[in-house]
Amino acid sequence: MALGAAFFGYGAHRAKTEGWRKLYTLSFFICLIASVLYLAMALGQGQSVVNDRPTVWVRYITWSLSTPLLLLIFAFLGHTSLTLTGSLLGTNALMIATGLVAALSPNPINYIWYVVSCAAYLAAVYLLLVPFRREAERNRPRTKKFFGQLVAIHLILWTAYPIVWILAPTGLDAISQDVETMFYTILDISSKVGFGLISLNTYSKIEHIGATTNDLEPTASLR
Amino acid sequence: MALGAAFFGYGAHRAKTEGWRKLYTLSFFICLIASVLYLAMALGQGQSVVNDRPTVWVRYITWSLSTPLLLLIFAFLGHTSLTLTGSLLGTNALMIATGLVAALSPNPINYIWYVVSCAAYLAAVYLLLVPFRREAERNRPRTKKFFGQLVAIHLILWTAYPIVWILAPTGLDAISQDVETMFYTILDISSKVGFGLISLNTYSKIEHIGATTNDLEPTASLR
Amino acid sequence: MALGAAFFGYGAHRAKTEGWRKLYTLSFFICLIASVLYLAMALGQGQSVVNDRPTVWVRYITWSLSTPLLLLIFAFLGHTSLTLTGSLLGTNALMIATGLVAALSPNPINYIWYVVSCAAYLAAVYLLLVPFRREAERNRPRTKKFFGQLVAIHLILWTAYPIVWILAPTGLDAISQDVETMFYTILDISSKVGFGLISLNTYSKIEHIGATTNDLEPTASLR
Repeated sequence: MALGAAFFGYGAHRAKTEGWRKLYTLSFFICLIASVLYLAMALGQGQSVVNDRPTVWVRYITWSLSTPLLLLIFAFLGHTSLTLTGSLLGTNALMIATGLVAALSPNPINYIWYVVSCAAYLAAVYLLLVPFRREAERNRPRTKKFFGQLVAIHLILWTAYPIVWILAPTGLDAISQDVETMFYTILDISSKVGFGLISLNTYSKIEHIGATTNDLEPTASLR
Repeated sequence: MALGAAFFGYGAHRAKTEGWRKLYTLSFFICLIASVLYLAMALGQGQSVVNDRPTVWVRYITWSLSTPLLLLIFAFLGHTSLTLTGSLLGTNALMIATGLVAALSPNPINYIWYVVSCAAYLAAVYLLLVPFRREAERNRPRTKKFFGQLVAIHLILWTAYPIVWILAPTGLDAISQDVETMFYTILDISSKVGFGLISLNTYSKIEHIGATTNDLEPTASLR
Repeated sequence: MALGAAFFGYGAHRAKTEGWRKLYTLSFFICLIASVLYLAMALGQGQSVVNDRPTVWVRYITWSLSTPLLLLIFAFLGHTSLTLTGSLLGTNALMIATGLVAALSPNPINYIWYVVSCAAYLAAVYLLLVPFRREAERNRPRTKKFFGQLVAIHLILWTAYPIVWILAPTGLDAISQDVETMFYTILDISSKVGFGLISLNTYSKIEHIGATTNDLEPTASLR
């Protein structure tokens, strides 16, 4: 993860245009936040036994910081409007906050919060699949298929998180905490380093097409 | 509250213009946050006995998230400048943070923080009554009276909160916790669902006048 | 500190242009946040004995709120791009968050976090010394030397913080907690009230030169 951060940080340093710098910087901070998380976990910090279940609550803190940056990558690539970007960030924040509450709540209340968190996740999926893609395709009509791919990869990775959650000791206790940690680690690397690389690739394709068709406008819609 | 959220969410989905979508979305998230608060309270979570007083600290967390959105509605309707919007948000954050500290502090220190919180509230009242209205009336001269009404309704509702606070077990203990909860619930519904509806109504009047007089500009001042 | 807040608040109230209002308002909130910190400390709140060391954790909370505003002053004066402003804020947040973790961690883990926090600080120093100054000098070529001075004063003040930290009971325990508090208080007054005054002075020089050379553009780059 630190290697990923170093790579994106170096990229941000060398970036030629403001757009590239933005994209590299976002991926850099996503990996940096995750690196701090893994440092804390390696030092045995950020976890407690709550309601007889071991809970790595520091995950939720770092997720609450890194996932908005990931959504900003989407917003940047798709020229997403301010309202939709805000809705995505709000839905995402609700998902993570209720996920944390679920992890800290006693059984069986934790399942209620899990359902709320999943509902927020489904709302975010809907926002990405329908209004986000519609806006992205309207703003950059020639790059339709890239957004489809990007959203698909993202959704496959993110859908795995609640599945791990419900199988892990936080939920049904079907897998051990070590297996839980292993799965989350694989997912984190894929969805942070991997996704960062894919988003760079997508942007390079968009820029290439944009350069030849001139449908690139200044990214006024991104904060 | 969930019904209010559903109504505003549906409105956001169907909204014709970006402005309407923004307004519906803000009201939607305000009601959504409050729904989560009431779910937590219904499950008996988010409260502790601190310094021999029962304290529903989760209220302050959700207020700290929903009140900025409410102020953004004001900023949106009034084309408020970035500096004034930031000042309003900062004053509001100070008010809620010191309110939380007051709720968690032992007697008599809690009264000191209560006074600080009320001072922040009065500062917010001043900002809304004087500079906010001045800016709103300058930006949209034909809609003067609507802002007066909107601010008045808002201030009446918000002024009730510190009164309930000081009468409740958090302060003088003149009313029971059940009565406190009842008052806060009525106030929350009025100031979230009710205020959301009033703001929609105000916007519709502004738009109507704007359409005929052409003094509507893109809302560049709102983040 | 409260006097500083009152001075800047009055300045914001009387400010003639939006730029001056922004600058005064930022300094006002910086001093206001610090005033709340000192009130809390005067009331004996916001500190606990963690791992046998007295830890004033409330410092970190208020720093995490006031330092971003300080960096926004830099961004405002230097017409800093959104990406660089975001990077500065992110690096600063990492520095303070890991500083807090260091203060709360048992010995010797706290030194690991101290090193991480110092690394983040060095990154922020680099961002201010190199890309920030480059952008500021490109945006306002005739005011080169003021930015050099401003950054230098800022860096001297900020560098003292980690030195106090490592000498204080949070680190090597070479100075007593009273001396630590005294140093932090002097530093806070210098870097908040003092720096606020210097930034006003710098802006007045920039405006003066700008008025005669016309290289002032609307501050579109500042959020």
